[in-house]
Amino acid sequence: MFGKIALEECWTIQEELANNDPGKFVAAGTGSRLTNELLDIHGTRLKQMDENNVDFMVLSFNSPGCQGISDKSQAEAQATLANDRMEAEVMKAPNRFAAFAALSMHDPAQAAAELRRCMTEKKGFVGVLLNDYQSCGEDGNGMLYYDQPEYDVFWQAANDLEAPVYMHPRPSNKLIHKLMWDGRPWLDFSALGYADRLNMHILGIVTNGVLDRFPKVKVIFGHMGEHIPYDIYRIDHKLDRSRFPNMPMRKDKLVRDYFGEQLFITTSGHFSTPALMCAMGEVGVQSIMFSIDYPFESIPNACAWWDEHVSASVNQHDYTNMGRNNVLKIIPKLTEEPHNLKTMTPQECKVGRLAADQGEVCYGLYNKSWNKREIKVVPSQAMFIG
Amino acid sequence: MFGKIALEECWTIQEELANNDPGKFVAAGTGSRLTNELLDIHGTRLKQMDENNVDFMVLSFNSPGCQGISDKSQAEAQATLANDRMEAEVMKAPNRFAAFAALSMHDPAQAAAELRRCMTEKKGFVGVLLNDYQSCGEDGNGMLYYDQPEYDVFWQAANDLEAPVYMHPRPSNKLIHKLMWDGRPWLDFSALGYADRLNMHILGIVTNGVLDRFPKVKVIFGHMGEHIPYDIYRIDHKLDRSRFPNMPMRKDKLVRDYFGEQLFITTSGHFSTPALMCAMGEVGVQSIMFSIDYPFESIPNACAWWDEHVSASVNQHDYTNMGRNNVLKIIPKLTEEPHNLKTMTPQECKVGRLAADQGEVCYGLYNKSWNKREIKVVPSQAMFIG
Amino acid sequence: MFGKIALEECWTIQEELANNDPGKFVAAGTGSRLTNELLDIHGTRLKQMDENNVDFMVLSFNSPGCQGISDKSQAEAQATLANDRMEAEVMKAPNRFAAFAALSMHDPAQAAAELRRCMTEKKGFVGVLLNDYQSCGEDGNGMLYYDQPEYDVFWQAANDLEAPVYMHPRPSNKLIHKLMWDGRPWLDFSALGYADRLNMHILGIVTNGVLDRFPKVKVIFGHMGEHIPYDIYRIDHKLDRSRFPNMPMRKDKLVRDYFGEQLFITTSGHFSTPALMCAMGEVGVQSIMFSIDYPFESIPNACAWWDEHVSASVNQHDYTNMGRNNVLKIIPKLTEEPHNLKTMTPQECKVGRLAADQGEVCYGLYNKSWNKREIKVVPSQAMFIG
Amino acid sequence: MFGKIALEECWTIQEELANNDPGKFVAAGTGSRLTNELLDIHGTRLKQMDENNVDFMVLSFNSPGCQGISDKSQAEAQATLANDRMEAEVMKAPNRFAAFAALSMHDPAQAAAELRRCMTEKKGFVGVLLNDYQSCGEDGNGMLYYDQPEYDVFWQAANDLEAPVYMHPRPSNKLIHKLMWDGRPWLDFSALGYADRLNMHILGIVTNGVLDRFPKVKVIFGHMGEHIPYDIYRIDHKLDRSRFPNMPMRKDKLVRDYFGEQLFITTSGHFSTPALMCAMGEVGVQSIMFSIDYPFESIPNACAWWDEHVSASVNQHDYTNMGRNNVLKIIPKLTEEPHNLKTMTPQECKVGRLAADQGEVCYGLYNKSWNKREIKVVPSQAMFIG
Repeated sequence: MFGKIALEECWTIQEELANNDPGKFVAAGTGSRLTNELLDIHGTRLKQMDENNVDFMVLSFNSPGCQGISDKSQAEAQATLANDRMEAEVMKAPNRFAAFAALSMHDPAQAAAELRRCMTEKKGFVGVLLNDYQSCGEDGNGMLYYDQPEYDVFWQAANDLEAPVYMHPRPSNKLIHKLMWDGRPWLDFSALGYADRLNMHILGIVTNGVLDRFPKVKVIFGHMGEHIPYDIYRIDHKLDRSRFPNMPMRKDKLVRDYFGEQLFITTSGHFSTPALMCAMGEVGVQSIMFSIDYPFESIPNACAWWDEHVSASVNQHDYTNMGRNNVLKIIPKLTEEPHNLKTMTPQECKVGRLAADQGEVCYGLYNKSWNKREIKVVPSQAMFIG
Repeated sequence: MFGKIALEECWTIQEELANNDPGKFVAAGTGSRLTNELLDIHGTRLKQMDENNVDFMVLSFNSPGCQGISDKSQAEAQATLANDRMEAEVMKAPNRFAAFAALSMHDPAQAAAELRRCMTEKKGFVGVLLNDYQSCGEDGNGMLYYDQPEYDVFWQAANDLEAPVYMHPRPSNKLIHKLMWDGRPWLDFSALGYADRLNMHILGIVTNGVLDRFPKVKVIFGHMGEHIPYDIYRIDHKLDRSRFPNMPMRKDKLVRDYFGEQLFITTSGHFSTPALMCAMGEVGVQSIMFSIDYPFESIPNACAWWDEHVSASVNQHDYTNMGRNNVLKIIPKLTEEPHNLKTMTPQECKVGRLAADQGEVCYGLYNKSWNKREIKVVPSQAMFIG
Repeated sequence: MFGKIALEECWTIQEELANNDPGKFVAAGTGSRLTNELLDIHGTRLKQMDENNVDFMVLSFNSPGCQGISDKSQAEAQATLANDRMEAEVMKAPNRFAAFAALSMHDPAQAAAELRRCMTEKKGFVGVLLNDYQSCGEDGNGMLYYDQPEYDVFWQAANDLEAPVYMHPRPSNKLIHKLMWDGRPWLDFSALGYADRLNMHILGIVTNGVLDRFPKVKVIFGHMGEHIPYDIYRIDHKLDRSRFPNMPMRKDKLVRDYFGEQLFITTSGHFSTPALMCAMGEVGVQSIMFSIDYPFESIPNACAWWDEHVSASVNQHDYTNMGRNNVLKIIPKLTEEPHNLKTMTPQECKVGRLAADQGEVCYGLYNKSWNKREIKVVPSQAMFIG
Repeated sequence: MFGKIALEECWTIQEELANNDPGKFVAAGTGSRLTNELLDIHGTRLKQMDENNVDFMVLSFNSPGCQGISDKSQAEAQATLANDRMEAEVMKAPNRFAAFAALSMHDPAQAAAELRRCMTEKKGFVGVLLNDYQSCGEDGNGMLYYDQPEYDVFWQAANDLEAPVYMHPRPSNKLIHKLMWDGRPWLDFSALGYADRLNMHILGIVTNGVLDRFPKVKVIFGHMGEHIPYDIYRIDHKLDRSRFPNMPMRKDKLVRDYFGEQLFITTSGHFSTPALMCAMGEVGVQSIMFSIDYPFESIPNACAWWDEHVSASVNQHDYTNMGRNNVLKIIPKLTEEPHNLKTMTPQECKVGRLAADQGEVCYGLYNKSWNKREIKVVPSQAMFIG
């Protein structure tokens, strides 16, 4: 599909590597590959975007980022540094990149101020990405959650600035790891623990009424919804108001009601067609956006899934909306200067057809080689260049 | 679901019963039930609409109607009579009913003129419904198909009047019945033959380029798409232009490309959730509208499926769109005088929730009786009255 | 569907109520209803089973049961008491009930011995149900997990006795609740926290190699798989051996490979058709069994879902297998004395058809009342009585 | 997937080309490619089978074959010739090929005798394939259907010989083409008309009671079921016995009841994942088998769909059963001399995993090249050779 937009795409800076060695999140021997890809924007990344018809990426600061810095002033300084660098990088190619702001969440008012600085004084920012809870305390085992009343000042800013908040996972801290994950450490990360903790934080935000108090706030989360779409029946069924009369969320709404209006998910890092189908049933096409999770996932792999598998399972309208157009409704700032992204039709995205001679189209999975197994042809990138 | 709109809902007049005894289409002993229901609009039908939260019906003249009358002048007179009666009936309750015009298709220019009369000189009409091929000839075995060039004058009128064309099935004529269906007559009707013939006619219209020449024409068909969505891969795959270079349809489009733009389906008479899911995948929510096929199907049965089964399988946005809002986009005339229909939100349609005390909602399949099996409560009809 | 078997069905004894007041798990004012239903077997429960065509229930001791008793000898005594009582109750109607043993898991050898006592010296037991981690320690905040090497003696017994192990959730302890759930306590229970913790324990068992060392062990879990089927792509994808070379699970297998052979799920408490469809795609019909979660869910509600919704979404073979026959393959002891359960055909289960006159069948959603909305007729229970 | 078996795979002989030029069924300029592929078995075909892990093909005589020969004695002679040649070819590599017999259906007793000859006097035959109706009459416009009572002698033989009957489509004859398809001839073939006619014949066989009178008869049909699975709700719903009291099919069964027991479908020529999912829901995994439709479809294309798309949408058990093992249950003769096919596990089929170093597996869509788009590696063919 031409014109794909991806939202959960990581980037880092040299100064962050000491805090947070990405190498520990991948197989031994591949850490330097990962580190190089995190530091790069306009080289290999852009080349792969071109090769795989990814029109645009919204970049964010690599997890846990400022959320992993338990010292308040260090976290705040790192956010400022990251945001300033991000702005500079994005503005080198604003037709291909935008950014989610990094924030220290130690002090909600300071977080609000830094978000305001990014959204109003800079040009490349279209929202904010938070890496689950904010670590704090001398031992780093404190955990701050943004569903608590003291964070209303932050949500007020996100609401007023119309800045979507992307909730991204992170590993457990040392205390929780020891209490729960120690005997099975491989589960603490992206295979399971990320979602098991982040879905609590997200549903905390919803059920504590944040979305009701701040109706322009949009919360986005990845990995096909951190288990939530699959269990949305049970979640709503079991949050019975007669059992939990003090739960602050509006009593005339269900969690599912927020999807498509204030809650949105992406496909990052979970390239499962059955899971996508389930999510389409439970939270709907209008709640779903394509994303990759680069460089923790391979761009060609994510795009092979989207371009070949999903295109063969979903009609062209819904497919094009999830691959591109939904983003422009959910983050309309992307349609303005300096990004200027435009809605595209399925035909413009070259969806749901194979090119034949002389402008004709044909249909099927194959390419022109009848007897040989080949990769599906990826059309040239010309339209996105220049 | 409150606010449902249904599109393939039959009605007849006393004068048609001699041509076409509805009793032959149902079990022995139930013909009079059917006949009475066909003749009725404002009695039992409206009562059941109220009881089942069907806000609105677009009525059409019972199949085969004028298509079954092989004498040209009789067919034309019957169309005029049916349309005049329909207008009178609809205008008794235009906030609950509209009509698709009945047409004789012997003479395309006459058909165009009668359609123009209905759409411009009357108030209750929002399109036209045709019952497959037009019978003609002295023996009644002639078959006229509207995908042939001489019908362009009719399509031009439908285009200019922005009158959607609902393609409805009918039984085979005597000749075809004898050649193909005689040894298995029960298959000639709604179980199989209706779709096996109508899908040819519909795809004839598409592949002969009618939709290309008349880009404002919208064709609607029922019964979950007359087998087409399930086979859309194979249809497009096998209509290879290199094999059929003379097929008039635009060579840069596939049949699937017309869905959601010029082709639409309804659920009439095929209350299968797996088939609906397949159609949602292949032709998309924006191509699908709820319908019943009353009185050949029971209103409570169709609505029990939609209200209970489908609501538990599809998110509230897509569900509300298929149950109501899509119709208002596809037939915008329904939003104008004298019908004045309005888009409704899932909340207004009371979708995806159970009512609890004091305006609260809860979720699940059950009602308040924990230990007894009950019908799901149908909310009161107050909102549609007055 | 006639002949349904349900596996996650709770029961308790008067002596347990002091430890564990079930009233705290339901809405204010309904606790006594719940308590009465937990204490009852042969009264209301059996009556509702009859009314809803539940042929058989495997009973288990109400969560957290012995896992919630942090004192070792008290926990062991409670298990013995519960099991002795359960045997007596089950043997009053062994053609309708069997039991999963309750165990204290403080001492794996003692657990093995008690399991052996139940499986060999008693007649009503067909496996064991464990309520997540075993609480221990003076403050009750210790947590014992059964994926650790010291529990191999328990798994060896389960393997040798061919006793399936049902893993059931429970609330967090006070320490974890305070650290993670305190600001959103309603999420700690069945809406989210149950699954978020239990899926870690289950995947700990799998990835620590328990199923490899004990190939006859079968682990069952409910609630449509505690989020695991939806994320099985990501789980397998992210448990990359090159990143986690020390993970003990066989390196030539994936987590998904154990489903249908050593891992099985039930539908208890998650009556979502889209989630069931997703699970059928990802872990397969042979891994899935119907269950209710009585009395935390209503029997009529669970059965209305299964009998009406699922029967209309799944072909009769897969449906009958999930509703009954799979259980007899996974727990073959149920086919022996004193339970003597038999495989049933779809026809014997009266699946996929409506009864018409004189032994005929017809098909559709409706019953004989054409114009009135009714509950689908539930056939009489005669076949299961006597 | 290793070990795939394909069932609707065409072959022809030089002597048939004059009757039936395959070139008219494909794009201009590709007729000789098709003809060569039809004539070949052990060359290009086997090479592609090896390259794409197709373990085994059941061959059949190219449509319309003997059904297209309206002269009785010519048709019978052609069947004998084709079957003798087929036997000789299959026995060159009986571990890779078997055959469905070709039959003239002019005389049911002669058809039965020729089927008996193939099934008892030859070694390579495992059933029969019929190309829809038998043409007859001087003008070739006669159509014989096998659901009529005079064909019971044929069905008796198929029953006694336990020879499955594969029902394959063919184009309409000149009379029907002129009456129905003339204005849209491209629809008469595989895009639509094939299924529109064959589904009538198949359902004629079912509803006329053939399967009831001959309970060991199994009928197989391709193209994902010739539209039937999508409409099975409506088919059963509308074949109401009270309306059609003379329909011979057992009154205590529905059409859907025969699926998985006497009716089976294949995926030939319809590589649509949404259609497969719908069929899995409506007629069940046990009714579905992989097939290609070579050489009207490309082997690499069919296998790319099955190996890459379907493997990512269906759990490994169901997938392996549909790809191989179901065939061995439905046609058990394939497990005997001289074919000796064996059931394979998902692991043996190398399903649902990527090979990693040293016998390890990993999971995902990608191969080892992180940054480059590649075809998924097809494992070597060694296991099927020798």
